[in-house]
Amino acid sequence: MSESVIQSSRPPAIVLVEPQLGENVGTAARAMANFGLHDLRIVNPREGWPNERARAAASRADHVIDHVQVFPSVEAAIADLGLVYATTARQRELAKDVAGPREAAVKLLELGQSGPVGVLFGRERSGLTNDEVALADAILTLPVEPTFSSLNIAQAVLVIAYEWRLALLGGEASGLPLVGPTEEDLAPKGEVIRMFEHLEGALDEVDFFRPAEKRPHMVRALRTLLLRARLNDQEVRTLRGVVAALERRPTRPRRQHVSADEPGGDEGSR
Amino acid sequence: MSESVIQSSRPPAIVLVEPQLGENVGTAARAMANFGLHDLRIVNPREGWPNERARAAASRADHVIDHVQVFPSVEAAIADLGLVYATTARQRELAKDVAGPREAAVKLLELGQSGPVGVLFGRERSGLTNDEVALADAILTLPVEPTFSSLNIAQAVLVIAYEWRLALLGGEASGLPLVGPTEEDLAPKGEVIRMFEHLEGALDEVDFFRPAEKRPHMVRALRTLLLRARLNDQEVRTLRGVVAALERRPTRPRRQHVSADEPGGDEGSR
Repeated sequence: MSESVIQSSRPPAIVLVEPQLGENVGTAARAMANFGLHDLRIVNPREGWPNERARAAASRADHVIDHVQVFPSVEAAIADLGLVYATTARQRELAKDVAGPREAAVKLLELGQSGPVGVLFGRERSGLTNDEVALADAILTLPVEPTFSSLNIAQAVLVIAYEWRLALLGGEASGLPLVGPTEEDLAPKGEVIRMFEHLEGALDEVDFFRPAEKRPHMVRALRTLLLRARLNDQEVRTLRGVVAALERRPTRPRRQHVSADEPGGDEGSR
Repeated sequence: MSESVIQSSRPPAIVLVEPQLGENVGTAARAMANFGLHDLRIVNPREGWPNERARAAASRADHVIDHVQVFPSVEAAIADLGLVYATTARQRELAKDVAGPREAAVKLLELGQSGPVGVLFGRERSGLTNDEVALADAILTLPVEPTFSSLNIAQAVLVIAYEWRLALLGGEASGLPLVGPTEEDLAPKGEVIRMFEHLEGALDEVDFFRPAEKRPHMVRALRTLLLRARLNDQEVRTLRGVVAALERRPTRPRRQHVSADEPGGDEGSR
């Protein structure tokens, strides 16, 4: 990677999911600013927004606080992002790749050259739900001491922001395996989520998720396996076309004027 | 370095010089504990010692707080230490080696095998004096963003403790729990190919592959994106269940005895 290319990489968005205290938003903003990150997004902050305690705790990182974006859901907060990591402290049953901060930073730096990328952080006490983790491409875990694991949000943000900056500066990260070519044009998460919802809606209509109490688990498993494919825009459209084609499969003769006008890879008309 | 040698390296002492607030001592202790450091030393704490605000801010890092040593001078605090780094934020005129946290962590780990080593941190507002820096073997500087440099003591301690732990773990691969899919439980290709043929047959029936001459290309694209997900047996069965469910989507009322007997993830009965 040449230096000029790296200089154009967009710092990752930091997405805080339902933070309880404005102070934690502020200390996270300060941690970001120290290492050159500025895109801070919050999902449903419990104390509302704007928040003066956040600004006070940010210790003059006003350029971050002033541009915070607030979203009603994780899906909305990551809709424009390509590569997304979910930060988790404990083991998950989800079959996702797991990276440490150093490896994740290298990937975020690389893929940040072609579009926005980001990292999810969960609630102070309970972290991210399994459904939220399932929306991410991979899991990011910090190598804390197993017998004392008590990182707060700002500390986790700090370590990741530090590693991102070190990668930007050319650190010692050059020995790490680089990402595959397909990750460079990951589809925005909003498109992927719409594809998920399309598929799950079609499966609901045929009563696929049975028994009903297993639906959340089955949805997570499907999302996880499809996210592992690291789909690009075209591939997301292809899969939507597959679902649309299958779900409108006629038992009566197919209406010819419909099939003649629509190419097979289209999204359909739900 | 072999693993057995590394395991015997003593974590570096963290030396806080004249911290103003007990809370900062506590948050530094918490940062240390997260990454396995425990030797905390304080030179002339302004609020005295012991300090209940320090304990509260340490968030259960009592094993660090309980063993804090207080010294009247930097000289006394580092008397038993070999390699000592002085953390500074700004340039110094001193002709000393300057290291980043990663390089310093590797040296602290190596030399920690033969005796105690440590890192000096200065006062909240004014840092270390030149005389204090002069006592250290080398300078440690964090790669903060020049236009916004506002790391507090606990944040600086956190980054160095994190790097020390990462060095201990030999880079991050060995220290992290790997729960992602491995190549060991990839589904046999025969199962994967049968799933492909099932899907493609269903799509043929709804005339998905149009125009016909593009079918080979479209099939390859679909197979490629699904193979990238590195599916295991269970996931292949799940996808076959999805295809089976979608292709038999009824436009007439569903036959109840069928839906009651079949679990959703089944392959269906083509």
